[in-house]
Formats: sequence, structure tokens, C-alpha cells
Amino acid sequence: MTDIERVIMPGITHWNSPHFHAYYPTACSFPSIVGEILSAGLSSIGFSWISSPACTELEVVMMNWLGNLLGLPETFLNSSSGPGGGTIQGSASEATLVGLLSAREKTVKELRENDPSLSESDIRGRLVAYTSDQANSSVEKAGLLGAVPMKHVPADENGCLRGEALQKAIDEDKRNNRIPFYVVATLGSTGTCAFDKLEEIGPICKKEGVWLHIDAAYAGTAFVCPEYRPLMKGVHYADSFNYNPHKWMLVNFDCSAMWFQNVKHLVESFNVDRIYLKHQHEGHAPDYRHWQIALGRRFRSLKLWFTLRIYGVEGIRNHVRSQIALAKYFEELVSGDSRFEVLTSNLGLVCFRLKGDDKLTKDLLQKITEKKKLYLISCYYRNKFVIRFVICSRLTNSSDVEFAWKEISGIANEIIPRKFFENVKMPSISSIADSCKNNGIVGLNDAFSKGAA
Amino acid sequence: MTDIERVIMPGITHWNSPHFHAYYPTACSFPSIVGEILSAGLSSIGFSWISSPACTELEVVMMNWLGNLLGLPETFLNSSSGPGGGTIQGSASEATLVGLLSAREKTVKELRENDPSLSESDIRGRLVAYTSDQANSSVEKAGLLGAVPMKHVPADENGCLRGEALQKAIDEDKRNNRIPFYVVATLGSTGTCAFDKLEEIGPICKKEGVWLHIDAAYAGTAFVCPEYRPLMKGVHYADSFNYNPHKWMLVNFDCSAMWFQNVKHLVESFNVDRIYLKHQHEGHAPDYRHWQIALGRRFRSLKLWFTLRIYGVEGIRNHVRSQIALAKYFEELVSGDSRFEVLTSNLGLVCFRLKGDDKLTKDLLQKITEKKKLYLISCYYRNKFVIRFVICSRLTNSSDVEFAWKEISGIANEIIPRKFFENVKMPSISSIADSCKNNGIVGLNDAFSKGAA
Repeated sequence: MTDIERVIMPGITHWNSPHFHAYYPTACSFPSIVGEILSAGLSSIGFSWISSPACTELEVVMMNWLGNLLGLPETFLNSSSGPGGGTIQGSASEATLVGLLSAREKTVKELRENDPSLSESDIRGRLVAYTSDQANSSVEKAGLLGAVPMKHVPADENGCLRGEALQKAIDEDKRNNRIPFYVVATLGSTGTCAFDKLEEIGPICKKEGVWLHIDAAYAGTAFVCPEYRPLMKGVHYADSFNYNPHKWMLVNFDCSAMWFQNVKHLVESFNVDRIYLKHQHEGHAPDYRHWQIALGRRFRSLKLWFTLRIYGVEGIRNHVRSQIALAKYFEELVSGDSRFEVLTSNLGLVCFRLKGDDKLTKDLLQKITEKKKLYLISCYYRNKFVIRFVICSRLTNSSDVEFAWKEISGIANEIIPRKFFENVKMPSISSIADSCKNNGIVGLNDAFSKGAA
Repeated sequence: MTDIERVIMPGITHWNSPHFHAYYPTACSFPSIVGEILSAGLSSIGFSWISSPACTELEVVMMNWLGNLLGLPETFLNSSSGPGGGTIQGSASEATLVGLLSAREKTVKELRENDPSLSESDIRGRLVAYTSDQANSSVEKAGLLGAVPMKHVPADENGCLRGEALQKAIDEDKRNNRIPFYVVATLGSTGTCAFDKLEEIGPICKKEGVWLHIDAAYAGTAFVCPEYRPLMKGVHYADSFNYNPHKWMLVNFDCSAMWFQNVKHLVESFNVDRIYLKHQHEGHAPDYRHWQIALGRRFRSLKLWFTLRIYGVEGIRNHVRSQIALAKYFEELVSGDSRFEVLTSNLGLVCFRLKGDDKLTKDLLQKITEKKKLYLISCYYRNKFVIRFVICSRLTNSSDVEFAWKEISGIANEIIPRKFFENVKMPSISSIADSCKNNGIVGLNDAFSKGAA
């Protein structure tokens, strides 16, 4: 343990520091860690129901709880009378690949049923998948690993994939004798947290017989709050839906929730059986090895169960709302300085830049990184270099946001001196900050530690 | 926590009970759990070096330690001057798939360099991979997911893949204009712990330009003991090698170690970059996201480090040797009963059956399973139904083996009454048991708990 301090800690990027505002959050909470410890102690490998019944059964129930918590259509749930169901994957990358491979094999099978003269490899060689040019790198990687082209359809000026652009891409490929089979729509893009227009994309996928997968890795947690569910309008068109409780929902990595409208397509693509895996109770409960890439799997539903029970629905909603309020507070601080512009502000992510040439913002980010007080990263939006500011840690509160802004604006003074006559809004007069503080939502950690005590 | 006892524990398959002898072991040890707790608390996501430098750097070092511990050729190690390197995957299934995808893209690239008129999909449609008919189901699944046929080459009468059979399969496919590109050899098959003949297979793979991947998921841990290294003779022919410290080497799931002779082929197949993932230090340390399917990854090298340091090399060797001695003890007990026959005994796995029709052994296993004192599973060997008995738990000692044998032979009495005149060797006179006990290796847990105290 001494060597942890000596060797490891100096080399750690502190993802749960209140001054970490890069990427997206990775969750860390006490109930989740207790679940992780229990999982390690029990060390069950739940590849089939019989290899540890509780491991499968708790996961079935937790995926129902979670689906209801998000307000997903009933048809996605294990508890529905239909062929839908949910499972825990390791990451959104894995989920996107699992969706792609299921869609690929389903398409191959259906086309060969219609025309047995087609060979499997002929069909596979003509397949084409689509996503927006704002999608996460893991979507492109899924195409690479699945050996199908993953076309980047241009998003609109707000970073959203629209129906018209998708239809155009599909039509062009069909004219060239290609077979569109898979679309990945993003709810909450990595760059700017933009939302693809499911209500436009969904009907096109249905009409074209294309599998629609939704990647809501970060933003999915927001749907715990009813007021954000309009952002997923059209979700019923999806064949599979994924989000990461391990990002924003207080469950430690890894815990990526994935649902399917029809599990049959998945299991048929992934099922290889052996006598040593067979058991008498097949069919009564899912054998989750057929729902994922690997054979082995940990008892991850324990940390989900513990987190949901300790925080409760309202606790998780408070967490989401307080983090969004903190992002709004930061947005207001930036907007009050005329040297800066805020380009987007969605959920817990604010994208901003110094007005003028990209070089100014690049210099600013470089200096922030070198000073090592904050960790922020960049992206491009409308061909402009912007800095992403995300509320990441469960521990971040309004004074941390003020600290971040003082750092950023202070470093900006080295690049563009602030005009002495400028009318700067001070943090303390921000109505959002007041509202945030008055409601006691300066970070759920406060509420939680009081509750736990 | 009350609900853990009430709801979860009755539904747990106790993989670490001393009476669990099914599948293969899944590891569980205190140092490893402490590593897991630290990993959860730090909750770093080490997809690139900069996203948590210590997470990448400790993994680089641990993979060198581990490679040296097993006596792998230097060329596999991160520390070598060449292009080799090691990383932690989630499971052997994942490793087999990662090897297959790398081999696939390498082959496509090389063939197109030689003949640019070939299309990628033409090449992919002609690819073919091979493994033995004794390989784990995850190998077939890798073929399914990678959309290439995974041919099951018949193993010899000992369950080993031989050069002649492989060459025959390759020749036949080449005559049919197919492209052999990937061979998965198994060291320690799931059924009977058979070892494919690397010294025959390796030169064929080299000559044919085919990627050789070695799956030593369970048996790899035995190579920690120099006396078992002859079983991996020919390992230097492999392009990639994988074994699971989370099976037999006391590190909790998941921790699957994988090495490559040339990491370039892997990274070229898996690399998709984005501005938000870029950093200034690229090239100095591996960005492990290019070495695996997912983007995110846990700090798994911590549990490896803790386990290696607390047990030490000799502690792990003792663990392996004591578990093999216990399996030999069981073999001797079974062999002493003339109703039974032992078909194979390799490392910690003994395959046995009742002489005569398969139905007898099936009945025996059925009754053992129903009685719920022991957990054992079956496989087929030389077309005969056999029961697999594996020393799984770190806690299993010689009295547990005696308990298991009393249970099994007692239940056998219900199927084939023991002849009263039969000269039965009693457990207490077993020379192996004595040697096992006299050496104090009744399970490393004893040694370890004394040491820790």
C-alpha cells in the first residue's frame, strides 16, 4: 500500500477530482464499490443461468428496473411478453459492435432466405452501415472490426444526424448495389452532446429494413428525469438501445446497459453450444453468454442494485439535475465575459472558445493543460476549435465551477488582456448559481453523505 | 446486506467452494480483491496513456513480469527491443477474437499490396481459419463474429491437434481457392486439458503465412513451474499467446493476459483516432485502446501486481503444484476402484467414467448433480461420456478430495453395487496423498493465511 502512494498515485489522472472536466464522467460511488467488492468475493462467472442463477436473475430484474427508470418502451424489457430484453455489456463500444454483428447476421440470413443463390460472403461484401460524422470513434471501430464500411453521414449545423441526409446516403448506396443494414444514432455526441433526430431517422430505418441502434452512452442517464425524455422521442423505432450507468449514473465502470426489441436475432448470431455448457434448465432464463462477445462475465448487476437502492430514484434525479445546473452556471460565467463565446450547452457539457482565430483557444487550452490545475479537452464544432467543459465528478460543486472559471479566465488574461472598462458579471450575482445553491444541489455528495450518516 | 443473504446467496453457484469441481477454476484471492477495490476507488479509465499514465505503465511492467514468470520468449515482451508486447484483455474469448481480427486485416492488407485488383470483400470471403475439434466454444464464436469459417480439424486420439491433419485441411482449402489465415492452437483443452502439438503446427503456420494464436486459458498458469514448460515447446512460432491469470493464477476475473510478436498488425487493424483522444505524448507508451475491442478499460494490472507481490513466484508455484498433486490423489482414488476407469489426467483435471455403457456414467452424474454436494460436469472423450473432475478452489485440500471421492463412489454403489470381495485401496494408504500432506501442500490457502498472519 505504501507503493501505491509512491509509485501509482503520482501517475494517476484523477477522473473523480472536482477539477476534472475532460471526456465525460466515469462514475464512482460507495454503494457501487461495495457491490464490486461483493462481486469479487463471490467470484461467480455467470455465462449461463446454471453457472450462477442469482447472477443471471438479478441482472434480468435490474435491467427491468433500469428500463422503467429511463421510461423506455415496455417492448425493450425482459418483463414484457414479447421477445425484448436487456443485459449488461462492458462498454458502449462493445454494445455498438454487438448490435452491428447481430444486424449483419440477421441481414445475411434474411436475404439468403429470399434468394438462396446469394452467398454469405457476397452479401457481407455489399453491406454498409451509417452513423453521423459526430459519432464516437468506437462506432467507426465497430465497422472496422465487423468488416463493413461505416459511413459518416454529415450532421446538420447543430451536430445532429437528420433524416434527409441519411436517406440520401442510403439511396446512393442502393443505386450502387450495396445493402444498407445498420444505423447508429447518437443521443449525446461525444464532441458537443448533440442529439440525432430519432423521429426522422427511425421511420427511414423501418422503411428500409435497417437495424437502428442508439448510442446514448452519456446522455442516457438524463432520461431518469422525465423532463429530459423528449430528447429520446422516437426511441421506439430502435432495435437496440445502449447507455452507460458507469458514465453518469454513479455505477463504477464497467456497466453498460443494452436492450433489444428482439433478442432472437442476437442469440442466433452469437450461439455456439458445447456439451460442457449445456444444462437442464435452458430456456427458462437467458444464458447471457449468447448476448455478448465473451463467454465469461462478472456479477455486475450487484453494483447496479446497490446503487439504485441506496440513492433511490429521487437521489439519482437530484444528481443529474444538480450537475446540469452546475453546467448552466459555468455557461453563465463564460457568457458574462465578452472575450468568450459559448457554442453549445447540453446537459453537463459546455463548449466554449475565445472569439477570433482558433489559435487563441488552442493557446488557452495548452496553457490550462500545462498548469495542471484543471483537465479539459477540445473538439471541433462548425469547423471551430472549442474547449469542452464537462461536470464530471460526483464531488463537483459550485465553488469548483467558480474555481475553474477563475483559472480559465485568468489564463485568458495572458492571451487577451481583459479591457479594464468591461462590464463583467461577477459569479456571485448569477441567478443560476443562486438557484443552484438555494436548492441545496451543490453536488449530490452532500445530500448523500448526510443521508448515509 | 441482509438482502444479499436472503435474495442472492441461495441462488449462487459457489465457484470457490472446495466442492466445486466443474468447468475450470475461477480465481479469488485477498490481494487480488484489494487490487480490485483500489481500481474501483481510483476509477481511472485507461484508454490512452494520458487518460491515466500509471494505469498504462503498470500494465506494461506487469505484462513483462508475467511473460518472464511463464518463460515466454523475450520477443513477446514490451521490454524487448522488437515490436512485441503484452496487454490485459477481458477474457480468452476476447483474445481469440482480437487475434482473429488482426490476422484478418493483416492478410487483407498484404494480399492487396501484392495484387491491388483484389477487393477487400473478395479476400474476406475466401478466408478460412482452423482449430481443433477440441477447442473451446469461444474459438468457434470468434469465427462467427469475425464472419470467417472456423474449421474444426479432427484431433488425434489423445485430443491433440497434429501437424498432418492441419496440413491436410489447409491443402484442401487452398485447392478450393480459399485463403488459410488463422490457426488457434489450444494448450489445455476445455474437455480434457489436451495439448496441441505446437512443434508440428508452428512450422506449418510459418510456411503457409498463417497467424498462429495460442489459447492456454487454463493451462498457461502451469508454465510458472519450469517442469511444465515442455508442454509449450514451440511457443516461439506463435504470433499471439493468451492465458487467464483469472482462471488458475489467483487473480480475480477479469484478467486475461495476451502477448503479440508484432503489435503493429494489431494497432493497424484497431486504430481509429479522434481529436478528443489525441495527446502530445503519443508513441512513448502504448495507447491500449488500439489493442482491444472496447475503448474504456479498468486498472486491472493493480490486482495482478498485488497478487504477484503477496504470493511471490514460489507462492504461485506452490499453489499450482499442490493443486496438481490433489488431482493426482483423486486419480489414484478412482483408479483403485475397479468399476471406474480414468481416461485422462492432465494438470488439475481428471476425466473418469464407470466402465461399460455411457448410461451408467450419465446416471452417476445426474445423481451427483441432484444431490448438490458436489458440482461436476461432463464431456466426451473418444466418443465416451466422461465426468470431468477439476481442482478448482484455492481452498480445496486433500480431505475435500476424499469427501468428493466418498460421495462419488457412494452414489456409484446405487448404480453398480461394489463386490464385497473387491480389494479396495483405501484413501488413507495413498502414497500421493501422504506425499501431498507431508509436504504441507494441502492447499496454498493454509500457507498463505499463516504467512499473512
